[in-house]
Amino acid sequence: SRTISLAVIPGDGIGQEVVSEGLKVLSAVLPQDVKLETKTYDFGAKRWHGTGETLTDADLAQLKEHDAILLGAIGDPSVPSGVLERGFLLKLRFAFDHHVNLRPSKLLPGVKSALAGDHEIDFVVVREGTEGPYVGNGGVLRAGTPHEVATEVSVNTAFGVERVVRDAYARAQARPRKKLTLVHKNNVLVHAGHLWKNIFDRVGQEFPEVTTDYLHVDAATIFFVTQPERFDVVVTDNLFGDILTDLAAAITGGIGLAASGNINPSGEFPSMFEPVHGSAPDIAGQGKADPTATVLSVALLLQHLGHPDEAARIEAAVAADLAERTGAQRSTSAIGDALAARVSG
Amino acid sequence: SRTISLAVIPGDGIGQEVVSEGLKVLSAVLPQDVKLETKTYDFGAKRWHGTGETLTDADLAQLKEHDAILLGAIGDPSVPSGVLERGFLLKLRFAFDHHVNLRPSKLLPGVKSALAGDHEIDFVVVREGTEGPYVGNGGVLRAGTPHEVATEVSVNTAFGVERVVRDAYARAQARPRKKLTLVHKNNVLVHAGHLWKNIFDRVGQEFPEVTTDYLHVDAATIFFVTQPERFDVVVTDNLFGDILTDLAAAITGGIGLAASGNINPSGEFPSMFEPVHGSAPDIAGQGKADPTATVLSVALLLQHLGHPDEAARIEAAVAADLAERTGAQRSTSAIGDALAARVSG
Ligand SMILES: CC(C)[C@H](C(=O)O)[C@@H](O)C(=O)O
Ligand SMILES: CC(C)[C@H](C(=O)O)[C@@H](O)C(=O)O
Repeated sequence: SRTISLAVIPGDGIGQEVVSEGLKVLSAVLPQDVKLETKTYDFGAKRWHGTGETLTDADLAQLKEHDAILLGAIGDPSVPSGVLERGFLLKLRFAFDHHVNLRPSKLLPGVKSALAGDHEIDFVVVREGTEGPYVGNGGVLRAGTPHEVATEVSVNTAFGVERVVRDAYARAQARPRKKLTLVHKNNVLVHAGHLWKNIFDRVGQEFPEVTTDYLHVDAATIFFVTQPERFDVVVTDNLFGDILTDLAAAITGGIGLAASGNINPSGEFPSMFEPVHGSAPDIAGQGKADPTATVLSVALLLQHLGHPDEAARIEAAVAADLAERTGAQRSTSAIGDALAARVSG
Repeated sequence: SRTISLAVIPGDGIGQEVVSEGLKVLSAVLPQDVKLETKTYDFGAKRWHGTGETLTDADLAQLKEHDAILLGAIGDPSVPSGVLERGFLLKLRFAFDHHVNLRPSKLLPGVKSALAGDHEIDFVVVREGTEGPYVGNGGVLRAGTPHEVATEVSVNTAFGVERVVRDAYARAQARPRKKLTLVHKNNVLVHAGHLWKNIFDRVGQEFPEVTTDYLHVDAATIFFVTQPERFDVVVTDNLFGDILTDLAAAITGGIGLAASGNINPSGEFPSMFEPVHGSAPDIAGQGKADPTATVLSVALLLQHLGHPDEAARIEAAVAADLAERTGAQRSTSAIGDALAARVSG
């Protein structure tokens, strides 16, 4: 018998609703001998309004004790842009060294996507999670004057790039097509770009079976929409990964289906799993949100914690559910119920 | 009677072929009393291989004497990545202060684009051209060692942002829908993002008729493919503009149709007009390249030099040509001939 200790962060907007369904499916899929212990945390807009806190050292110490974290969504129009993103989401990714930001993109049968057309889409983006333009370096000089200068510094280290590139090669090696594409902009961002390309080429020697490819980020966006079958595993920097994975979600059925894992492969810190979508305040509390992205994030969580069979059962349940969707709108909990029934059935 | 003094830079790969057709159409459309004087420059891979030069001070002094520049494409796999991009293309944009990088995206009737579906697409991206992550600031520490650190600094100034934002408002004001969308990532890149947003809001007070909107770049990529009709004028930073305009080209019929102008609105330096596509070495010299993007860049050039009627005639000719395309492949010069016949007809 084993125990999973899970930190649950519903967050803002639709976060609460989708996380409930994620937990419902998680409980339904777990074998009898695995015990699930959850603890819910109140991070997000409400707490910030009440206390001015986003994520304290004490919070981090508590979160660190869990095996994994499930997050709904953080963000609300009532909070100035950047406060919760930098103060909570990114703070957590950096504090827990979530350097592998994993975002699968698969066009499941049954998904009607005009954008996907006849293309077969089944790739995974490995987005670096702790470096690049996301580090928060930079600043402002002469703020608010006609002479203001604002800088953002993208920091890229051999250490940080090599570990995520090696992780991506290993994932490519484990997939049938064994292909890895590096996306960067090394014809313009020559310093960072050459660091990425050199490490990509060098680490590739350890994976002779993996076919490699390089694309500039602008060209990659074209191929994402015109030839998505070209991609198997994609490795890229934090900002390019942010942009490309939203685009990937759009072509594979929408952001309502896109799951992600913020992974610390060493296990030194708990990994965090969250849908790619945001808090969607416009539809919050109405039972309209599709919890599928959260449920698929639960599958990534199970995969990460060493329960691949349960992860596969969730994916199969989602595929079956999507295949039977008629277009009639179901509530958030109705979808969760259907998925829970399928995984336990 | 007037004279247009044009610097012509065919460049590499298909550059030569498409520029010939651009000039053919330009000659055909110009009224009798406008004299066209062209001078061709040999910049690109061949010159770099021969002399090691990309763009010298003497070159810049010569180019400066022209009214405008028409460029085909620069870049070749035989040249290390970044050498010609930074050493020629970006050097020229920066030296001639091309801060308005104008990239229209219009789905012309007759273009069969599965990606566009039933959407109406008619927007223009105003990409900042002289700042952001393109400035070339940054560097490498401990190159080639396990402790390498590579940085890229995005520099954003109130001066640089305000002038391009004002230009974009003026363009929005002049269009029927009068809508301007700012794209940035101000929830993560807070220093640069807030500078952009503050200036965007402040300058907007001078344009009360213009409706405004803000999108994070990741969300913008989704809307580009799912709701392109949402956009009228988009203003954004140099890197986001690079990525978004390739995506925009992909949905409006492909990179073979996408034109651009690198504009210095003050006229202190000549503006440069070029197709968004690259040198496509795989099809170079075979008469397979579509010169339409170059021809549309000539229309932008004419617009910029104060010949709006001639620009409109080119656009109409392209629209008519596209509407009659049957799918049978025509050569580069056949397309150029057809367009030249239409504009002079
Ligand atoms: C909300 C924001 C900080 C975040 C990011 O940019 O990483 C989001 O867009 C995502 O992709 O998870
Ligand atoms: C070739 C490269 C320097 C250039 C850019 O990044 O601006 C190109 O992609 C473009 O969009 O004109």
